[in-house]
Amino acid sequence: MTFSIQRFSASVTAFVFGQPFSTGAVIAEPQFVQEKGSGLGIQQEAGSSAPCQYVSITEADDGIHIRYALAEGDAIYGLGQNMGKLNKRGQLFKTWCSDEFRHLPDKASLYGAHPFLMIKGENNFALFIDYPGEMTLDLGFFDTHQLSVHILTHNVRIFEFTAASARQQVRDFRSLIGQPYIPPRWAFGYQQCRWSYHDKNAVDEVVEKFRHLDIPCDSVYLDIDYMEEFKDFTLDQHRFPDFSNWVAELRLQGIRLIPIIDAGVKVAESYSVYQEGCEKGYFCKTETGEEFQAAVWPGLCAFPDFFQPEVRQWWGKKYQFLTDQGIDGFWNDMNEPALFYSPQGLEQAIAHAEQCKDRNIGVHEFFALKGAFDNLSNRREDYQAIWHQLEDGSRINHEQVHNLYGQKMTQAAAEGFKQLDRDKRFLMFSRASAVGGHRYGGIWLGDNHSWWEHLKLNVTMMPGVNMCGYLYSGADVGGFAGNATSELLCRWIQFAVFTPLLRNHACMGTRNQEPYAFDERALNIMRQHIKLRYRLIPYLYSEFMLAAQNNESLFWPLPLEYADPAAQNVEDQLLVGRSLMCAPVLESNASGRYVYLPENMLLWKVRQHDEFDLKIMSQGHHHLPLELADMAVFLRPDSVLPLVDSAHHVEAQDLSSLECLVYLHSSAEYLLYHDDGVTHNWQQGKQASLKIKVFYDAEKEIQLDVKAEGDLPYQQLKLTIVDQFEQAVVHHISID
Amino acid sequence: MTFSIQRFSASVTAFVFGQPFSTGAVIAEPQFVQEKGSGLGIQQEAGSSAPCQYVSITEADDGIHIRYALAEGDAIYGLGQNMGKLNKRGQLFKTWCSDEFRHLPDKASLYGAHPFLMIKGENNFALFIDYPGEMTLDLGFFDTHQLSVHILTHNVRIFEFTAASARQQVRDFRSLIGQPYIPPRWAFGYQQCRWSYHDKNAVDEVVEKFRHLDIPCDSVYLDIDYMEEFKDFTLDQHRFPDFSNWVAELRLQGIRLIPIIDAGVKVAESYSVYQEGCEKGYFCKTETGEEFQAAVWPGLCAFPDFFQPEVRQWWGKKYQFLTDQGIDGFWNDMNEPALFYSPQGLEQAIAHAEQCKDRNIGVHEFFALKGAFDNLSNRREDYQAIWHQLEDGSRINHEQVHNLYGQKMTQAAAEGFKQLDRDKRFLMFSRASAVGGHRYGGIWLGDNHSWWEHLKLNVTMMPGVNMCGYLYSGADVGGFAGNATSELLCRWIQFAVFTPLLRNHACMGTRNQEPYAFDERALNIMRQHIKLRYRLIPYLYSEFMLAAQNNESLFWPLPLEYADPAAQNVEDQLLVGRSLMCAPVLESNASGRYVYLPENMLLWKVRQHDEFDLKIMSQGHHHLPLELADMAVFLRPDSVLPLVDSAHHVEAQDLSSLECLVYLHSSAEYLLYHDDGVTHNWQQGKQASLKIKVFYDAEKEIQLDVKAEGDLPYQQLKLTIVDQFEQAVVHHISID
Repeated sequence: MTFSIQRFSASVTAFVFGQPFSTGAVIAEPQFVQEKGSGLGIQQEAGSSAPCQYVSITEADDGIHIRYALAEGDAIYGLGQNMGKLNKRGQLFKTWCSDEFRHLPDKASLYGAHPFLMIKGENNFALFIDYPGEMTLDLGFFDTHQLSVHILTHNVRIFEFTAASARQQVRDFRSLIGQPYIPPRWAFGYQQCRWSYHDKNAVDEVVEKFRHLDIPCDSVYLDIDYMEEFKDFTLDQHRFPDFSNWVAELRLQGIRLIPIIDAGVKVAESYSVYQEGCEKGYFCKTETGEEFQAAVWPGLCAFPDFFQPEVRQWWGKKYQFLTDQGIDGFWNDMNEPALFYSPQGLEQAIAHAEQCKDRNIGVHEFFALKGAFDNLSNRREDYQAIWHQLEDGSRINHEQVHNLYGQKMTQAAAEGFKQLDRDKRFLMFSRASAVGGHRYGGIWLGDNHSWWEHLKLNVTMMPGVNMCGYLYSGADVGGFAGNATSELLCRWIQFAVFTPLLRNHACMGTRNQEPYAFDERALNIMRQHIKLRYRLIPYLYSEFMLAAQNNESLFWPLPLEYADPAAQNVEDQLLVGRSLMCAPVLESNASGRYVYLPENMLLWKVRQHDEFDLKIMSQGHHHLPLELADMAVFLRPDSVLPLVDSAHHVEAQDLSSLECLVYLHSSAEYLLYHDDGVTHNWQQGKQASLKIKVFYDAEKEIQLDVKAEGDLPYQQLKLTIVDQFEQAVVHHISID
Repeated sequence: MTFSIQRFSASVTAFVFGQPFSTGAVIAEPQFVQEKGSGLGIQQEAGSSAPCQYVSITEADDGIHIRYALAEGDAIYGLGQNMGKLNKRGQLFKTWCSDEFRHLPDKASLYGAHPFLMIKGENNFALFIDYPGEMTLDLGFFDTHQLSVHILTHNVRIFEFTAASARQQVRDFRSLIGQPYIPPRWAFGYQQCRWSYHDKNAVDEVVEKFRHLDIPCDSVYLDIDYMEEFKDFTLDQHRFPDFSNWVAELRLQGIRLIPIIDAGVKVAESYSVYQEGCEKGYFCKTETGEEFQAAVWPGLCAFPDFFQPEVRQWWGKKYQFLTDQGIDGFWNDMNEPALFYSPQGLEQAIAHAEQCKDRNIGVHEFFALKGAFDNLSNRREDYQAIWHQLEDGSRINHEQVHNLYGQKMTQAAAEGFKQLDRDKRFLMFSRASAVGGHRYGGIWLGDNHSWWEHLKLNVTMMPGVNMCGYLYSGADVGGFAGNATSELLCRWIQFAVFTPLLRNHACMGTRNQEPYAFDERALNIMRQHIKLRYRLIPYLYSEFMLAAQNNESLFWPLPLEYADPAAQNVEDQLLVGRSLMCAPVLESNASGRYVYLPENMLLWKVRQHDEFDLKIMSQGHHHLPLELADMAVFLRPDSVLPLVDSAHHVEAQDLSSLECLVYLHSSAEYLLYHDDGVTHNWQQGKQASLKIKVFYDAEKEIQLDVKAEGDLPYQQLKLTIVDQFEQAVVHHISID
């Protein structure tokens, strides 16, 4: 067994086996490299293991194995966008970006490949396995006392993070993979989607309803039907006439249109994108150099070979077709890539069917026949038929790099946007992703269902994707597939007010899922909580930007924050930024929930966006009544929550009056970040901030210290300070 | 609109529309009937509604509609074997017995059709809709404020139960539908199943392991592979040689073999069951009088027309093939009936495939093609092709009576057993069921998954099926499909120790799921809790028998027992008989759970089957630490829990020493039922009982009053009495 060792810092070491494919996940360079065979003793005998601090890494004929003996109370966090609870011990995963319509409890992989995991318990450390193909991660599933990762290659880089604290392990990881994508500030508004708002009138009606019913909204989505025959970078002119003028009109109402872009390019002679790609050899090939084709929404498609920089550049420029018409946000879909079927697969299935004709087939033959059609989509054989061209002139089979395809599409978009307007922030998020793709766009959590189980999943997935740098993220609120009830949507919104991407989305064939599609009571509740979201935007945006800059998470599990044994089982509450803890209601017909407070907290029980009760709750277990109209937000001790008024859309919000709620124990300090929200100028120092300090002086009098820096919109500050005895005092301050 | 009214009692009224099919669900006769058109004013105008106390019933072209306006806090219980929580408000159901492999949150129907529902809230009442075809039940799903049932017929009997208490509503319902099936007492032991223990050696190894490892077990199951080519009432002589001697040998070890019987009969010339049925015209026909055939496990099958008494008699006698060889328990499967495909359906799908050959089909065409194969199983068209022969010489289409098919198969078995040995109790439970079938056998809860969600579902389904009289019931412990973890199986057993049917079952292709197939720690935990089950059998059996005789439930939801507002949201605790409340741990990696106590209770925290902590816990919310080895059992005030020692199987238990745990507030009275456990002689008064009364006399001294009646095995009684101050006293008494 040979490997080299790369040391990135005292607490970050990588073990490099074979010649790993350069995934681009890690952009940091090692400080020190110990090469294999360098005489430093890292040429080891077969069956021995690499000198990791905690895990054993061994090489075998079938690939590389990582093993770790789990102690009784060990917990495992991370794994990004995957099924299960926060603590993923006892589950089985694999990395294989998959178009999975049904997120069932034992699905081993979804759309993202995020093999970053944190072990908390007897030892505390984290691992990142930098390999873009398949691996399986058995986190105590088959053997409750064994963590074992099997990577189906001999070429991999494995990182061990040994910092003492979980936060530092994540920071170390994130410092390797670079800063996340930053969306425009308006992308923190409420967004409304459906597959599909079929024409201009349908969209106009949605906009009209939101505005008329006084529900804030910043954007409406165009799903695949806006295109002509599902062809990327085309518009159905009949259903969406006079597009650019319409886009401009909607902008005047504070609404942006966000069109979808799919990975597959329709094979059609008259279609210029296909023709160009074809002529230039930009599509993925088969082993014999033919164009690889498989069917997706448009029917047979070719797939841009995003591994080639030239292809990415070509593709990235294509978005200009829509940006020229006033569009400044997109979502990239079907980019695992999803393959409904290949002509070969379909042919085989049909031949299989023909063989069964006029025969009394046995039941096993029947299931084989049914399976032939059932398993046509996303067949491994089809993926294996794809070859990518690399920069060095060599080719690589898709199997080896599958998990990078989708994010290279998003990279193409990000690179294109930079070319189009290097200052401007575009909204961009993707379905497929892998570690490193967070630099190019956000992700949404895929095609979930209108199930309470998937609301819970939204909660447990957020910290996982955050750890991998996907800060701009959220689930389809209300659930994509199936029919939502008004209660489910109300409760889902009450959690999603905290997710940067707050998008209600529903599948074709389901009932309407806009907030106004239900009963009056639900409408009133949703309106209030969407307005609350807008009130929270200064906080969420500031926390987002600071987390992005400082390699922090926006959502963070309690077990990783508090040593307290009782906090270790808390799966349905999350810290949101530095000041807040959320405790959403995740059960139907509930009029309350249990909450565990690892420390005294200030309950901010919201009924209306501007009407709430404040109550200090002591450390410990509580049962909290929460009717459908109620949501619970908790302020941590010595924390500050900034708020502004709501408005119909983000850019219409009047930021001149800022309120701050302070829960004061001894000294609360808060830095509220601000920037222009639309350009990348913050990178050149164009950042503004409001530093607020509230503390007791020697005479136990409350003192305030407010410092403004940079170009801030805030002029008046109202501070409501609640002390440990639940006494509130209000201060009004002018900000210079 | 015309209907007649049947009054069964002051609190039970039925409204009869058209000429309902005689389902046999209700065996009670009305006390008074008000005929339609009798001049009593029940010939009403179209659009008017029947004079129900609470609901509105109207007739429309598309069938009968029941509507009820739901108030904000109204909850809905019942619905038998269906998805969702205890309170089913906000869900959508339909009655259509279905072979559903995936019990997903929004599945509208499973294997049983149990349209009995209870509304609790502003009004308190229950409904039973006696119709054996399809109806949809929207319990506030599309409109949160509306309960609406749509019955796809004009011939139906609708019962309204208006007793004030939920318990009385259930009693009233159950008194209409008759007493439940009574299993032999040994069927309360632990049972081990797998699809499949493939041969005699595999079964012997299981038995050997259980006995060697000191895990109690009463039976091992034979799934479909014991048969010759899946032909009912055959044995594969190669894999199961010398069957009757082997059955006898196993009996000596206290193990019974329980073979499966499927509904479909293989179409095969050399197969006597098929030949006989064919000659006598016993199989279901098509409209033109041909034999209806569809494929199930054996390939093409014919389906006994269980609607004919003569066919049931014929079928019932067939079990003798196995009872003659010493078998005294069976499970009836695939009797919805499940249809993998019909020759017509398969032919159409293959023709569909041929039409797509060599064409570049569009994506919608592709999904239609895929759907043609996906939807081959349990097609509505195939069910509609089935006709049943009725006693009066008429025929009825299967569509109208679908939900009765499976239970008529079980009725055939029950009638057959009576003919074979009218005194003896046989074990019999079915997959498909409808209301009324509880008189013929139990049910298991179908092909669930090894998901924590399905452990929760086991908990919430039990009260539902109990209400419909299915007292002998339980889920596949550990989950049928998918791979269980040792933790899931441990926690599942901790709940299932309370379910009368306690059977571990797993699907072909999954990991071994016997208690010894996991780690040593899990084995030790499971052994202890299975032993605990055996200690509880006197209690469970007694509670079962009394519930059966008195139209009570064994599992009962807290919201229906306690008026207390905080109890209304308790979904994960159940009352089990008169003395106990269970509060199982239903989450992975949990080291405790929240519990709500509607009254002070005595916590019996079990670590080992004979080692436990006792603690009085006060009314209110608690967080209870429960490590994997721990389970919580609560005794209600003034209740008694009888216990005996465990043994390797039920009939080996030494019942001479009885322990009773008493949680005494003022006066605890308990009646412990006993009978021979193997015959129906209890119906002729051969019942025994131990009446235990523990109370404070005028001097506040504890007094005991123990009365034995009939033939009891108990000789020594040890009473451990815990008072309100957690003081325990022990009394030893001889029972004469």
